[in-house]
Amino acid sequence: MERPLPKKIEESRTIMSELVMPNDTNPQNNLMGGNMLRWMDIACAICAGKHCAKPVVTASVDNVAFGSPIRNGEVVTLEATVTRAFNTSLEIYVQATAATMQGLNPRRTHHAYFTFVALDKDNGSPTLVPEVVPLSEIEEQRYEAAMRRREVRLLLAGRLKPEEATHLRKVFG
Amino acid sequence: MERPLPKKIEESRTIMSELVMPNDTNPQNNLMGGNMLRWMDIACAICAGKHCAKPVVTASVDNVAFGSPIRNGEVVTLEATVTRAFNTSLEIYVQATAATMQGLNPRRTHHAYFTFVALDKDNGSPTLVPEVVPLSEIEEQRYEAAMRRREVRLLLAGRLKPEEATHLRKVFG
Amino acid sequence: MERPLPKKIEESRTIMSELVMPNDTNPQNNLMGGNMLRWMDIACAICAGKHCAKPVVTASVDNVAFGSPIRNGEVVTLEATVTRAFNTSLEIYVQATAATMQGLNPRRTHHAYFTFVALDKDNGSPTLVPEVVPLSEIEEQRYEAAMRRREVRLLLAGRLKPEEATHLRKVFG
Amino acid sequence: MERPLPKKIEESRTIMSELVMPNDTNPQNNLMGGNMLRWMDIACAICAGKHCAKPVVTASVDNVAFGSPIRNGEVVTLEATVTRAFNTSLEIYVQATAATMQGLNPRRTHHAYFTFVALDKDNGSPTLVPEVVPLSEIEEQRYEAAMRRREVRLLLAGRLKPEEATHLRKVFG
Amino acid sequence: MERPLPKKIEESRTIMSELVMPNDTNPQNNLMGGNMLRWMDIACAICAGKHCAKPVVTASVDNVAFGSPIRNGEVVTLEATVTRAFNTSLEIYVQATAATMQGLNPRRTHHAYFTFVALDKDNGSPTLVPEVVPLSEIEEQRYEAAMRRREVRLLLAGRLKPEEATHLRKVFG
Amino acid sequence: MERPLPKKIEESRTIMSELVMPNDTNPQNNLMGGNMLRWMDIACAICAGKHCAKPVVTASVDNVAFGSPIRNGEVVTLEATVTRAFNTSLEIYVQATAATMQGLNPRRTHHAYFTFVALDKDNGSPTLVPEVVPLSEIEEQRYEAAMRRREVRLLLAGRLKPEEATHLRKVFG
Repeated sequence: MERPLPKKIEESRTIMSELVMPNDTNPQNNLMGGNMLRWMDIACAICAGKHCAKPVVTASVDNVAFGSPIRNGEVVTLEATVTRAFNTSLEIYVQATAATMQGLNPRRTHHAYFTFVALDKDNGSPTLVPEVVPLSEIEEQRYEAAMRRREVRLLLAGRLKPEEATHLRKVFG
Repeated sequence: MERPLPKKIEESRTIMSELVMPNDTNPQNNLMGGNMLRWMDIACAICAGKHCAKPVVTASVDNVAFGSPIRNGEVVTLEATVTRAFNTSLEIYVQATAATMQGLNPRRTHHAYFTFVALDKDNGSPTLVPEVVPLSEIEEQRYEAAMRRREVRLLLAGRLKPEEATHLRKVFG
Repeated sequence: MERPLPKKIEESRTIMSELVMPNDTNPQNNLMGGNMLRWMDIACAICAGKHCAKPVVTASVDNVAFGSPIRNGEVVTLEATVTRAFNTSLEIYVQATAATMQGLNPRRTHHAYFTFVALDKDNGSPTLVPEVVPLSEIEEQRYEAAMRRREVRLLLAGRLKPEEATHLRKVFG
Repeated sequence: MERPLPKKIEESRTIMSELVMPNDTNPQNNLMGGNMLRWMDIACAICAGKHCAKPVVTASVDNVAFGSPIRNGEVVTLEATVTRAFNTSLEIYVQATAATMQGLNPRRTHHAYFTFVALDKDNGSPTLVPEVVPLSEIEEQRYEAAMRRREVRLLLAGRLKPEEATHLRKVFG
Repeated sequence: MERPLPKKIEESRTIMSELVMPNDTNPQNNLMGGNMLRWMDIACAICAGKHCAKPVVTASVDNVAFGSPIRNGEVVTLEATVTRAFNTSLEIYVQATAATMQGLNPRRTHHAYFTFVALDKDNGSPTLVPEVVPLSEIEEQRYEAAMRRREVRLLLAGRLKPEEATHLRKVFG
Repeated sequence: MERPLPKKIEESRTIMSELVMPNDTNPQNNLMGGNMLRWMDIACAICAGKHCAKPVVTASVDNVAFGSPIRNGEVVTLEATVTRAFNTSLEIYVQATAATMQGLNPRRTHHAYFTFVALDKDNGSPTLVPEVVPLSEIEEQRYEAAMRRREVRLLLAGRLKPEEATHLRKVFG
């Protein structure tokens, strides 16, 4: 199986807006965390699907950081971009911002890293994904750090021993 | 009451993506028209809210044209822009495109014109909206045609007589 | 292909009631326009389906006029009737009324015209629909005006030239 | 507190149509029983609210009989009518019918009896409801039988002893 | 067709928790009765499915008693258990309790009896279900009373004459 | 402000069952990852609320591991337990299992760690939470490891320097 040609991060950048409805909120009238996670998963899945041009499934989620609460009736905008591709998986970074429907009080609120696996359309087994070409400085940084996040994931899944986590060891060594 | 400063169309451009879920579809597995209308209304309301920086309510909808069917699991992207502001109302143009989650088969599908009225935050009555500055050629065209669409709306609402519809009379005269 | 026998408007009249739920409302506690559009589409589709006894798809929507706001917890009643059948399409008129759950403050609120195309069950291509027999005076009026609305739609879709819009020219001539 | 004037059953008759959506169905593609119950509750609550012109709350449900399964994409029509009013409560009969969106295969499917209590708007305590005037033969029959159903409810709630159930004793005596 | 081996009630006991969301409530901010019915149906269907290890469909519901109102943001816990199996059907008892999200104000609120029919996976026709072994005193009581509830159901469906209702006659005789 | 008395893990254990509906699934008919995340957030929030007896908000999510896909119509059971309380926050472990509605093919599928902050009811600021008493061996293990996961979270949020992460340094040292 040949690896598809590398792609630029820009090509799969995905923007999604959602209006916070009453049913998305808790009794304090703030967006429930779980709905933010659901929207993030959809935005990341669209982004991963575009990069791979294949069906993708969520493999793991890490480091979802929850910031300022979002009120009923506010608009949430999610921006998802690929950070790095591994063999058959890729990591997506998603950043949420919120503002009122009148565009007031704009602010960054939540972000997270989602990992997806690309599947072959015919037999449903994991398949090679296109490599990512980081261009800007921030893209470079996320590309580098993706390796450490991957080691954390593998450690936590028991698929890597602490002494094999070479990138992490550099940080703590 | 003073009129707020004019704004560029770009400032309130709104992009919204939606993933077509099973419950959005009819028994033929295509997106139901009513869901497209609901998404369009949300995208247009966000756009109108940004332009006016005031609460807005839908006043009318016209000329919703339905194009190629959209399948379960496809991604719909809506782009809403102001075409023209009148005194206390403004017209929004929304264009929908669809593609598979892998970004394949991209195509323009539906478009429509929504009219919103801006409301004063304190007393809830209609309030002046910022004028629109059309810049590109297509923005100019939509700005001009908005006057004719407005006359059609007023005629149909019985608030204008055929002989008063000066822009329309030029077309048919 | 033979045309099915004409039908009376009464035969496909469709009544639908909906209770406005919190998630159907905007932060001002009023029904969002997009939900009204979604319910209208469903009521009209049921009406069109009954008249044609075939699968139908929404082709266009025009002249949706939004009236008095509807509050959370109120009951919306939609009544959809065929106005006129063309060759493979037909126009439906839908009128919404609202009242409290106790039947108080009844009022007409929104109305619209939806156009549907009937599809052959086997090959999915447009198919002839039964003609409509208008009986009452108001049915007659809507039947006549449907021709002008059709010309507006065709004009806007660029499928008719102003000088060919014979019914509209009579109005503006 | 004076009792409001009696009302005819016709005055509060409520008709509601629902299109069965994918999310309303079980994996066999049939409407889930719980959704039918939810729609029945809404139709009955609207009917009870109209009769009492007061807020109402569901007090009990009995004898929900499930008939022929209803398929995804079919149209359900519910008709709710008052059968009898007691002091502060009233019983509603609801009958569901189903058909395809093309009006084919129409059939009666489910029916049930719902009991509601009317509440005073100010203090929220139970309040007298208008009596019901049964006119047709079927209305008379349901009015009579309501007394026996009420005794069954009170027996099951432990608020009536078998020897006090005078209407039921006539049936089994 | 051989009858499957009897099962203990414990084996199919089903617990389900739901958080009351804004859209589940009426304008008084209390859970709507119909949503409770929908959740009960799901909990009972899971319980019945486990006992029978076959697809099941709701056949009837009786004696749903509504207790104290449940507020937006409270947690509802439903516990469903088999009471008795007949030939191809079985009766499930479901008890709902509610409390705040902080576990405060716990209370029993609603209960009901649902009857399901088990279906053969291949031909979809009713099929024998495992008998139930009541063990505790309360299980015994519900097992006994199930026979009387069944007679009420059959009477109401016109499938049993009052003089044939031997268990009920003992109560009223 | 005094710290509330410690609590056992058992006291706030939360079990939640969900039936996978068509709208929860992707076009391959499997549960979408985002819906699992949403359910996990609700189960964890109920568990955290019970332990703290205070309003809680999601602060972060880590290490969501996605296992075997879950099909439309299957039953998901989530079990959430506290692992460790810090000052004003606490970590919850949630484990999901899935099976068919007939109880067949039971399997562990997803798990995750959610962190919540408890809020004072009056002023909405973070407030002390009860300590956790781990009793069983597995409870002990999760209690210990919680410290390392907390350090990972603080590191990633830039609120801890690698050289201050004493628990992590032991692992990599």
